[in-house]
Amino acid sequence: MKNFEEKTIQSTKIFDGKVVKLQVDEVTLPNGHTSKRETVKHPGAVAIIPITKDNKILFVEQYRKPLEKNLVEIPAGKLEEGEKPEATALRELEEETGYTTDHLSFVTSFYTSPGFADEIIHLYLTENLIPLEVKKDLDEDEFVELIELTLEEAEQYVQTERIHDAKTAYALLYLRLQGMKRT
Amino acid sequence: MKNFEEKTIQSTKIFDGKVVKLQVDEVTLPNGHTSKRETVKHPGAVAIIPITKDNKILFVEQYRKPLEKNLVEIPAGKLEEGEKPEATALRELEEETGYTTDHLSFVTSFYTSPGFADEIIHLYLTENLIPLEVKKDLDEDEFVELIELTLEEAEQYVQTERIHDAKTAYALLYLRLQGMKRT
Repeated sequence: MKNFEEKTIQSTKIFDGKVVKLQVDEVTLPNGHTSKRETVKHPGAVAIIPITKDNKILFVEQYRKPLEKNLVEIPAGKLEEGEKPEATALRELEEETGYTTDHLSFVTSFYTSPGFADEIIHLYLTENLIPLEVKKDLDEDEFVELIELTLEEAEQYVQTERIHDAKTAYALLYLRLQGMKRT
Repeated sequence: MKNFEEKTIQSTKIFDGKVVKLQVDEVTLPNGHTSKRETVKHPGAVAIIPITKDNKILFVEQYRKPLEKNLVEIPAGKLEEGEKPEATALRELEEETGYTTDHLSFVTSFYTSPGFADEIIHLYLTENLIPLEVKKDLDEDEFVELIELTLEEAEQYVQTERIHDAKTAYALLYLRLQGMKRT
């Protein structure tokens, strides 16, 4: 493994928001020159693949302001400070789908945009969905619609770009691969 | 499809950098209340899955300042203004691997972090790698090492988190699924 480390000479905080922070670091490059690196700091997130008893997948449709349109995605949400990813996954599952579970399996984790952001997503799967008797509230600025699809239907949503984000695309390939391993 | 549109009341530009821009929009929510949305604007990117004649995959290892560590990823890069994704893919393949190609297949595209960023990645695959006689220069602040791995080796890199980003994780599942379809 080559040492390409970029040492920070000076770090300038540009923005500290509700969701993201932004900083610009002046760094020393491996060749001794200097450059600037823009970094979006994010608290990290979880996503959950919820599979129902009749082998459908639960998704949420929501408006994504950065894209100025709706997307259909697997349930997901940001880590709150000090919260363990599995606790976040359970909370987001409950808030967004109205189901809870007694078993979350860890699938994988990945950085979404390592070139400019430190966001990591921890991905879980559950096949043990239990309807909540009392529904949980969403965040006050959150509006989502629950959608239940077969894997084949979800793959059609990819074709029409109603599903169009990395974590959901990964989840669908993962399910397709699991299904092929079983058969 | 529900109308969850969030109309912008006021948009404030916070930062205009080399790679990202940041803006905060005050919006009207579907319930009539107002809220703020932080959006990172990104030019979009491409990624390429380069497969060699002996069925290995080419990766690049590089230091990722937002994570303060090296990652091994499929070759990728940002769209330049007015550049078509396929042209970017060819340029990045040439700069980062020293190979060119006469055929890029489009695999898919996805938004990496639709909650806070508009970055989209266009993913291509090529099996027709042709060594460049004259190597291309990388960007002056870019330092990468070329790594050639079998799919099985790359999957081990996922286990040890040397491969740990969404586009590369997606690419490996995609190749595994294609391989299983063939056999």
